[in-house]
Amino acid sequence: MARKILRIDMAELSHAYEEVPAKWGKWAGRGLTSAIVAEEVEPTCHPLGPNNKLVIAPGWVSGTPAAPSSGRTSFGGKSPLTGGIKESNAGGLSSQKIAKLGLAAIILEGMPKGGKWYTLVVTKDGVSFESAADLMGKGLYEVDQILWKKYPNEPAVIGIGQVGEEKLSNAGISVNDPENKPGRYAGRGGLGAVMGARGVKAIIVDDSGGPGVEIADMDLFKTGRKKLTDAITSHDLTKPAGGLNSFGTNVLMNIINEAGGLPTRNFSAGQFEGAAQISGEMVAEMVEKRGAGMTGHGCHPGCIIKCSNIYPDENGEELVSCVEYETAWALGANCGIDDLDYVAKMTRECNDLGLDTIEAGNTVAIAMEGGALEFGDKVGALGLFDEIRQMTPLGRILGQGVEATAKAYGVHRIPTVKGQSMPAYEPRAIKGIGVTYATTPMGADHTAGYTIAPEIAGVGGKVDPLSDEGKAELSLTFQAATAFVDSSGYCLFIAFPILDIPEGWAGMAESVAGVTGMEITGDDVIPIGKEILKIEREFNARAGFTAQDDRPPEFMRYEELPPHNEVWTITDTVLDEVYSWTNGK
Amino acid sequence: MARKILRIDMAELSHAYEEVPAKWGKWAGRGLTSAIVAEEVEPTCHPLGPNNKLVIAPGWVSGTPAAPSSGRTSFGGKSPLTGGIKESNAGGLSSQKIAKLGLAAIILEGMPKGGKWYTLVVTKDGVSFESAADLMGKGLYEVDQILWKKYPNEPAVIGIGQVGEEKLSNAGISVNDPENKPGRYAGRGGLGAVMGARGVKAIIVDDSGGPGVEIADMDLFKTGRKKLTDAITSHDLTKPAGGLNSFGTNVLMNIINEAGGLPTRNFSAGQFEGAAQISGEMVAEMVEKRGAGMTGHGCHPGCIIKCSNIYPDENGEELVSCVEYETAWALGANCGIDDLDYVAKMTRECNDLGLDTIEAGNTVAIAMEGGALEFGDKVGALGLFDEIRQMTPLGRILGQGVEATAKAYGVHRIPTVKGQSMPAYEPRAIKGIGVTYATTPMGADHTAGYTIAPEIAGVGGKVDPLSDEGKAELSLTFQAATAFVDSSGYCLFIAFPILDIPEGWAGMAESVAGVTGMEITGDDVIPIGKEILKIEREFNARAGFTAQDDRPPEFMRYEELPPHNEVWTITDTVLDEVYSWTNGK
Repeated sequence: MARKILRIDMAELSHAYEEVPAKWGKWAGRGLTSAIVAEEVEPTCHPLGPNNKLVIAPGWVSGTPAAPSSGRTSFGGKSPLTGGIKESNAGGLSSQKIAKLGLAAIILEGMPKGGKWYTLVVTKDGVSFESAADLMGKGLYEVDQILWKKYPNEPAVIGIGQVGEEKLSNAGISVNDPENKPGRYAGRGGLGAVMGARGVKAIIVDDSGGPGVEIADMDLFKTGRKKLTDAITSHDLTKPAGGLNSFGTNVLMNIINEAGGLPTRNFSAGQFEGAAQISGEMVAEMVEKRGAGMTGHGCHPGCIIKCSNIYPDENGEELVSCVEYETAWALGANCGIDDLDYVAKMTRECNDLGLDTIEAGNTVAIAMEGGALEFGDKVGALGLFDEIRQMTPLGRILGQGVEATAKAYGVHRIPTVKGQSMPAYEPRAIKGIGVTYATTPMGADHTAGYTIAPEIAGVGGKVDPLSDEGKAELSLTFQAATAFVDSSGYCLFIAFPILDIPEGWAGMAESVAGVTGMEITGDDVIPIGKEILKIEREFNARAGFTAQDDRPPEFMRYEELPPHNEVWTITDTVLDEVYSWTNGK
Repeated sequence: MARKILRIDMAELSHAYEEVPAKWGKWAGRGLTSAIVAEEVEPTCHPLGPNNKLVIAPGWVSGTPAAPSSGRTSFGGKSPLTGGIKESNAGGLSSQKIAKLGLAAIILEGMPKGGKWYTLVVTKDGVSFESAADLMGKGLYEVDQILWKKYPNEPAVIGIGQVGEEKLSNAGISVNDPENKPGRYAGRGGLGAVMGARGVKAIIVDDSGGPGVEIADMDLFKTGRKKLTDAITSHDLTKPAGGLNSFGTNVLMNIINEAGGLPTRNFSAGQFEGAAQISGEMVAEMVEKRGAGMTGHGCHPGCIIKCSNIYPDENGEELVSCVEYETAWALGANCGIDDLDYVAKMTRECNDLGLDTIEAGNTVAIAMEGGALEFGDKVGALGLFDEIRQMTPLGRILGQGVEATAKAYGVHRIPTVKGQSMPAYEPRAIKGIGVTYATTPMGADHTAGYTIAPEIAGVGGKVDPLSDEGKAELSLTFQAATAFVDSSGYCLFIAFPILDIPEGWAGMAESVAGVTGMEITGDDVIPIGKEILKIEREFNARAGFTAQDDRPPEFMRYEELPPHNEVWTITDTVLDEVYSWTNGK
């Protein structure tokens, strides 16, 4: 059975199934959300107005049997944070269930009359629009519990927290994990506010009785799947008891600190004296010491990397899943906070309130730079989340993220590109990632083109992080490969093994070819990725983006970063070359 | 003696007098601030960072003997509100005094070390940098009083309020009036925050012993001055006891309401049932009834129009000068408030705190639309200014203006262009002014090209406000003429007589030619104005502005405005034609 598009009109409270038009037939995941947004959303519309849409799409291989680590769902729309096109993807339960319902995408459009709020229940029989009145003002831990009690078959719950209800621009979209906890986030870019503006508090996806995913060439799929699985299970970073499995992404904390690229106290230094205290090794130590929680946790069924963790509190109770590197950095080093328990408590607040942790940590750091509290004030920092919970005016400022907070406190050292704040790698110390931050259509985003692999981890080659040389080309290659992976449903972490193991790369492509019947080999990955990037860049160009939006923050050009005492040195001309091949210049 | 540029470096606490370079020799006022900003300020710099500058320039005829209504000072820089180039001009005492010191411009650059604050004292002997510690946190009514007590010769006081100290983006720059009250504002675009970011709370300008303004051709100057004076004193709108003199700018309230173009309750209707209660006629009635205050007040020495007023409170004490049309509309009709006393109280708050009243009124209206209080809640509205005074988080939101407040409350009906909110004329009901709002490099601004003259007042011709026909050309002509007038030092209100009386137009040009020695006639006004616009548009283009920034707010395209039930109908193609002759497209 051919995939369908499920279009949900919140103004009319109606839905319809549509054939996937031929022009979109090749796309899934990010490729599909971006293609739909580019065609159906007027680039100059207000992100919270009636003309924006939220598009949700599983990847090519999502929902197929035993495709390894393939539980990513793409969410797309015009971003309230960047003003450009956005794709943000999450793990959790939704990807496989949407795919198994035979859906290529769900398009959520229109705004309900009278400001009413709904829970959408999506099953094989269609969509029911149920009042969300009982969920309003509630955090996602409670919402997920309520909805699993109310609906059978342990469905996927796609939900927003209080921040999304208030349509603030750091609202993420949560997907529940196999234990029905929130925290698998399409966090970046404020798409939770786009969902909130449609009047949708939660979407239940129950795939019971769904048709499942059609596989065009099972043999090819199995061949590719095996190659990819073998690569994942043999690479040092992704194999069982390997780096990610043992210490999670937070294995990076000490490594990036050592490299002098760990943004500290709002990007004023590249090393944090308390890094070890908030590292992945320390997470593992706390799990061990407290005899609770776990490392090697999987965020979705079928993950074989399992980089997630469950962090326990002082009493051995589960505090939050999970404390990953970006989160520990954002709420830790970047705020001058070296207490993992506080980092974990703030992470739980983010997951409950519906906040992206990267933007939230950067926001706390900006509030510190603006004098609202001192760097390192962990008690004060945790208290800020209570302001958001109470939706005080301060909470409304903070809930919008970095740029809004900077403006409220007159701060001009603002680590953002296209309105979105930078993740845990300092562009002055690791130049390639700075090119990605500056040029990706997504706003500053490490996952958009993770040059850290060769610049720091020695994966996919070895490149000097401090050198400017070849960084434009490096970034573009990573951005293109990422756009492909983000369309596949596979977790981006398969990138580590497939960059080093050619059979893994080929296997990824073959598994996609097997499912879709498209003639795709490893050679097609970069060209297909570039097609997606082109669609996204052109949307942004039509929205009014120019070369001036592809720039690192001004202060990084004149302020030296210790310990390397480097400024940003890659020229604008080089940055402009990255996308010179598109019209979305 | 040739004019000099006074350059003040706040990082070094030093100053220098420079010859006016040949390339800038022809410019004064807005032409000069824009030329300097375009050349010396990197368009992509952060407006509050070390690389922005504040440029202050009197007009061509400022400080000359008896040039009528010629007390405007231009302030320029990169705007924290729009992100583009900004010129905002004010009446009050500064223009003539700066000119009489022989200064073409003051350039304020750099940021003081250690976050110290200064009062700059500018005299014929140079600049002294005095601590402003005693003024910090004080409102402008008090600041102006303190400074006149401290410094001799009743100097001009250019100052910022608490909002500018906090570098919030709706901070204006105040100039004291002849009675040493604040309220003559370079209000729009947040230049008060640019001054605040330089660590300058106030600038004292004492012209005692200054060289005065050199006049190249006194006969020509006198001829021009007489023609212009005759035009002003004979035109119905500007003559003694004429419309502006009797009722101030607020003579427009009933007229625009009648035309269905009075933006009401955050631009949701074009007529306000309480318009008469907040009109200029009502101001005159209150002055009469309370036997206090005055109409026909002049905001600077030598004004012969005198459109200002002094509004008295219930006890016959001076409450504020002045309640003008934009102010009464913004804080009145647009908030659904029909109580002139409350409007006046809020105006005083704006003048004291250092807020632009247009942006402030729009901000209150957005807070109302966002549900923070009800439309018409005058007590609540007045209370919001106390939040700003206390610099609570809510005050920090409001102090930034409309877009920040809209984001904090998830509002998508936002009447802004280029981040700046619209003045008191509805573009759906008066199409030409909408073209000005959309295309001027300044962000939505009626003074940038006041097509209301022909569209409503029948000045300079008579044009149907609801028609799309010819509005691009009309707006451009007005924008160009305005850029010239803004460079002259003359108040823009000379436009009414000179549009209707050809001798007045010629006289304006001749008076400028007489002072400067440049060969300028009435035929040169538009071409010179266009030169200035080109400089400004090109700055904005280099800052990353595109055609997408020349658009009215999205909601005006799909939401009909009562009573005419019109949407915005002028096409983007027509908007793009307005500046197709520049590179700053």
